Amino acid sequence: MNSNRFKWPVRVYYEDTDAGGVVYHATYLRYFERARTERLRALGFEHGGLRADAGILFAVKSMTVDFVKPARFDELLWVDARLTEVKRASLMFEQEIRRQQGAGAVLCKALVRIACLAADTFTVTAIPDNLLQRMKDEL
Amino acid sequence: MNSNRFKWPVRVYYEDTDAGGVVYHATYLRYFERARTERLRALGFEHGGLRADAGILFAVKSMTVDFVKPARFDELLWVDARLTEVKRASLMFEQEIRRQQGAGAVLCKALVRIACLAADTFTVTAIPDNLLQRMKDEL
Amino acid sequence: MNSNRFKWPVRVYYEDTDAGGVVYHATYLRYFERARTERLRALGFEHGGLRADAGILFAVKSMTVDFVKPARFDELLWVDARLTEVKRASLMFEQEIRRQQGAGAVLCKALVRIACLAADTFTVTAIPDNLLQRMKDEL
Amino acid sequence: MNSNRFKWPVRVYYEDTDAGGVVYHATYLRYFERARTERLRALGFEHGGLRADAGILFAVKSMTVDFVKPARFDELLWVDARLTEVKRASLMFEQEIRRQQGAGAVLCKALVRIACLAADTFTVTAIPDNLLQRMKDEL
Repeated sequence: MNSNRFKWPVRVYYEDTDAGGVVYHATYLRYFERARTERLRALGFEHGGLRADAGILFAVKSMTVDFVKPARFDELLWVDARLTEVKRASLMFEQEIRRQQGAGAVLCKALVRIACLAADTFTVTAIPDNLLQRMKDEL
Repeated sequence: MNSNRFKWPVRVYYEDTDAGGVVYHATYLRYFERARTERLRALGFEHGGLRADAGILFAVKSMTVDFVKPARFDELLWVDARLTEVKRASLMFEQEIRRQQGAGAVLCKALVRIACLAADTFTVTAIPDNLLQRMKDEL
Repeated sequence: MNSNRFKWPVRVYYEDTDAGGVVYHATYLRYFERARTERLRALGFEHGGLRADAGILFAVKSMTVDFVKPARFDELLWVDARLTEVKRASLMFEQEIRRQQGAGAVLCKALVRIACLAADTFTVTAIPDNLLQRMKDEL
Repeated sequence: MNSNRFKWPVRVYYEDTDAGGVVYHATYLRYFERARTERLRALGFEHGGLRADAGILFAVKSMTVDFVKPARFDELLWVDARLTEVKRASLMFEQEIRRQQGAGAVLCKALVRIACLAADTFTVTAIPDNLLQRMKDEL
């Protein structure tokens, strides 16, 4: 079963905007991460639990972001988080932010490379088997 | 020697503002903390070192904030951090943010109660003696 | 009908925490504002609309905040926003953040004075009549 | 004279970190923007002035970011902002964040495409001639 149709709602508050009158560019990275975190939670895993139980954390290794159109104050946005690659110690997500669920123009999109790190040493380590399998099922 | 004349410069960037066109209200708390951190560093102590060496961290316990006049994009502000009380396990700071060093109207002011906590348990603990004495000399 | 039982859910993400391992103190101000904004929306008004139609914006004038216990990564919190005073050009909110809806210990609480300002001049101005009446009904 | 050796100092505060114990990934975007803003100021221009006088603002159109090594709490970083392309209505910056001025390993690097927009319509518009020439001299 492919659940790549996952979308997470995000409301734009004052905290997210800047004096330009629109969403501050770094804010989109926060939105993207919320969707990835909720996607993980929907699979039955939480960052805190993975750190406490498996001693790992997921860190953004690299990303490419296109800021297509500005989102504005008070708008309700939808952020997706499609897994496009699941490797032993890294993941790739394709993400988009739109104004309406499914339809609506893309406001911002990103390609995000995530690395699995040992929480104590910050060195690359393997994704736990049960989570790895769960994510491969999503591809 | 009283160094309560300590002031720290802060520049207002896009990241600090909101769609109202002025500095976002929670941003002033970040500014206040930068000044307290630099004040501590001026006394020869750093948060990271205190945590690693003494196992403590300073946490904001309570604060009263008056947002008097809005600061704007591109402005250079000065933030002070006057110690007004040094107790065994807590501190009180009076802080102001102004447009110019010394002169200039107050834009934001705060009364901040800081507690000294054990970093592992988050329970109240005594401030290390050398730091405590150093801070008392500042009163 | 009193709707002061309004509560808004907030999830703690990485963006909200700091190296102390808990929610960063200024983050609670963002949470409080989200709840006030949603409370306003529940009454049928939005910040953006009020600015475009009535030329006003609501600004935090002063606040007292008690940081009682730290909230942690991954937790789901509930934020309320009780109107305790509605005047011609200002409002008072009492707000609390808890771990569970209704029950649960208070993690953070605040008393927040909001001023109604003309969006172009930032001077105090009267709250529009229809909104004022709507809020008085909530007391 | 080529001033592409421009570097801007940034101190890591609690506000910049997350529960992972290191700088939050979106924070680097704030650091990069501070350096670009200060680079512009060093050329004699400010965002606020450009908006008021020329009716333009600079917006991030796209960026590629590599998070190489984590920066930590209390560290002093240096951010550069090398102009590598100056076109009629857009700019390209190459930026790096390091631990020490000049030397030191790269912690984060980015390629940032900036568009010049009309502040009222958010449509692409030409960079004012005097600023355009000033920036071309920097290449």
